[in-house]
Amino acid sequence: MERTYIKELKNKAGQEVSISGWVDIRRDHGKLIFIDMRDVSGKIQCVTSAKNESAYAATNELRPEWVVTIKGKVSERPEKMVNKDEENGSVELQIEEVAILGRAKELPFELKTEINIDTYLDNLPLTLRMERGRVIFKIQAHIIKAFRNFLTQEGFVEIQAPKIIGEDAEGGANSFAIEYFKHTAHLAQSPQFYKQIMVGVFEKVFATGNVYRAEKHSTTRHLNEYTSLDFEMGFIKDHTDVMAVENKMLRYIVEELEKNCEKEIAHLEANLPSVPKNIPSVKLREAQEILKKEYEIDCENAPDLEPEHERKLCEYSKEKLDSEFIFVTHFPMSKRPMYTYEDEEDIGYAKGFDLLFRGLEITTGSQRVHDYDILVEAIKKKGLDPEKFAFYLQAFKYGMPPHGGIGLGLERLTAKLLGLENVKEATLFPRDLNRIDTLLSTDKLEQK
Amino acid sequence: MERTYIKELKNKAGQEVSISGWVDIRRDHGKLIFIDMRDVSGKIQCVTSAKNESAYAATNELRPEWVVTIKGKVSERPEKMVNKDEENGSVELQIEEVAILGRAKELPFELKTEINIDTYLDNLPLTLRMERGRVIFKIQAHIIKAFRNFLTQEGFVEIQAPKIIGEDAEGGANSFAIEYFKHTAHLAQSPQFYKQIMVGVFEKVFATGNVYRAEKHSTTRHLNEYTSLDFEMGFIKDHTDVMAVENKMLRYIVEELEKNCEKEIAHLEANLPSVPKNIPSVKLREAQEILKKEYEIDCENAPDLEPEHERKLCEYSKEKLDSEFIFVTHFPMSKRPMYTYEDEEDIGYAKGFDLLFRGLEITTGSQRVHDYDILVEAIKKKGLDPEKFAFYLQAFKYGMPPHGGIGLGLERLTAKLLGLENVKEATLFPRDLNRIDTLLSTDKLEQK
Repeated sequence: MERTYIKELKNKAGQEVSISGWVDIRRDHGKLIFIDMRDVSGKIQCVTSAKNESAYAATNELRPEWVVTIKGKVSERPEKMVNKDEENGSVELQIEEVAILGRAKELPFELKTEINIDTYLDNLPLTLRMERGRVIFKIQAHIIKAFRNFLTQEGFVEIQAPKIIGEDAEGGANSFAIEYFKHTAHLAQSPQFYKQIMVGVFEKVFATGNVYRAEKHSTTRHLNEYTSLDFEMGFIKDHTDVMAVENKMLRYIVEELEKNCEKEIAHLEANLPSVPKNIPSVKLREAQEILKKEYEIDCENAPDLEPEHERKLCEYSKEKLDSEFIFVTHFPMSKRPMYTYEDEEDIGYAKGFDLLFRGLEITTGSQRVHDYDILVEAIKKKGLDPEKFAFYLQAFKYGMPPHGGIGLGLERLTAKLLGLENVKEATLFPRDLNRIDTLLSTDKLEQK
Repeated sequence: MERTYIKELKNKAGQEVSISGWVDIRRDHGKLIFIDMRDVSGKIQCVTSAKNESAYAATNELRPEWVVTIKGKVSERPEKMVNKDEENGSVELQIEEVAILGRAKELPFELKTEINIDTYLDNLPLTLRMERGRVIFKIQAHIIKAFRNFLTQEGFVEIQAPKIIGEDAEGGANSFAIEYFKHTAHLAQSPQFYKQIMVGVFEKVFATGNVYRAEKHSTTRHLNEYTSLDFEMGFIKDHTDVMAVENKMLRYIVEELEKNCEKEIAHLEANLPSVPKNIPSVKLREAQEILKKEYEIDCENAPDLEPEHERKLCEYSKEKLDSEFIFVTHFPMSKRPMYTYEDEEDIGYAKGFDLLFRGLEITTGSQRVHDYDILVEAIKKKGLDPEKFAFYLQAFKYGMPPHGGIGLGLERLTAKLLGLENVKEATLFPRDLNRIDTLLSTDKLEQK
């Protein structure tokens, strides 16, 4: 008999069906055994009574997380047993046959239990099966799909950027070293060089992929490996063209989630933001004035914003500017990477921006230097050797248009859209200072 | 004036327009200067005569690969000057104003020149601008999009798999080591563990991303970093369910390319294959008999196929079975990774397969072991320590359905679909034994 997905059962009362999935919960009422079955589409209560000897014996053996195929008849529940809060609350499945596909050992904890983040992460192969995890990563799949669809519609071409690189675009301090045959190579902190090079080929490109930061942080917002959503576009007027595309893209992503993930968002009790047509934008120096005036925080002349400043600025933006997003532009050139374009009308400051959302920086972007000689000078100014960037520099040697782009952290965006406190909750298998799955904590890994 | 994309000019005769792009070719005829301009959408011949002093002077300065905005008037070419082979062959642009956006140094070679593969790869930021490279990677973007769209339609959920891992699913010999704070970690050779774990969550998942093989090969078919297209699906009967999905997916990809990339495919003079409804399938031992009988190649009892065998088998499949694709199943268990499912009816052989296409293996797939105890034994049998796989093993400890999946190399698929001789031509920025861009050849990289 062909498999029926569980969510379809509410319309199958009276029919014989075969379902497959996991035993979610087992309740033994003596002469009756109830099994809640779970598949990717939903849940259903199944029941057997001692009168049906073979079905009862087979059901009796089942335990949580066993994988089974159950054949049986869908029946309407008696009026007083109807559960209106559940999708299949009006029906149940009368078990006739049970076939075991996979057994499970006893669980280390009940899947309904509240557990701390470390236990959650140590047991992801099990804990991701809970509704919460499934919902988060289903939404994340929609976010990345919407990112790609939007940019494809706008004429951007997807590229596959390498992650094994020589010198890093962002400076070497935070890059992981790898042994590459007899050489030392590095893991890319971004697809920066390659997406810029590809502007010379396709004018507008995007990439989605893993990037690496060897930062010794273990916070609720840092990851050592994450998924970066990048785009880069040529023939821009300045960085504001890039900001406008990101703004439009965020509106599109939120619309797509509203359309496709209504149930998932309701389950998380998340509030999707409204993305304004024009996200407000302030220069760093203006932001610092706001912080001083509104919150008595004195950070004038600081080259960057502290996490607390980002939170306050978002609070301000939400209350006074009616936007949960705010662009901060014109950071000092000294704090930005060598490829950043200096504002000719505000010397010392970059035509670049961070995007803050609900208290957190989710994007860094800018116009980039496109003139070869200026770029060579900028590399030297950072104390780097242009010879080491000879491959990248070819793009500029042979003609590049004004261009710019952004990198957006998929996990940070997911976490903030869904109101998750820790970015690790929005990362399938997070890597941090103390974690590669459970390997760094088990001492099984060879120490250097 | 707003920018007009060049491909639209054929319908704009008589109009004033502004175009932006690269100087493709410059031809100086004394009193007339011709400039072929190129943007992402196409090419157009622009012209100025000495009579228009300022336009002539500005145009006279231009050289190949300079990036410019040109304002001018589109005019019909005289009948005898019409070039029917070009999209804009019936019009040209009378240059009125030139604005320089980016200059270029003198090119190391003319972009039309035939160059060898090393020169091509050493100069990718320039050489990718040639029609051939642009066309190949535009098609590649369509392939990966079609892969994702097909699987999404079939109910698969996209996942983001980490690449920094502890122990590797495929065995450690070919994995790159990385310094991870005070530990040694590795770069994943596949998303194998994570996609299997996620079958326990979503039943059907896919992933696209970079994977790493530290193989000391430098051939036309090996890469040390490539893009792997992976899917994994639960509740299968056996490996043939997986093969059927791959078969259907390949049909979809080829259909999408026929629909969306007609011009690009014509440019490459590529012949897309017809993908049969049922790709033929032979056991390895049957394949070896065919090789003996048809080609007098004696490889009976060999545990795998040599490249020459793969080519001959494809030749046979094309001629005798009317298919450019052929599945080879039932390799010996000793040659397959520990997670491979053994055929109960053909002990010693795997419920797994390779897919050969136009002489090359492009996919490896199989049903996987889903029983915890069997998997622990299989790990031990490979001489590995199950303790090191404790995280992965959780999925099986807590109930997994029968499942299987594949990994498909994007670059190999691209190369074979398009008739490219070297897989590096289908890789944006290939990494091999001797190449990370130009860094391994310049001795600038620190030697270990």
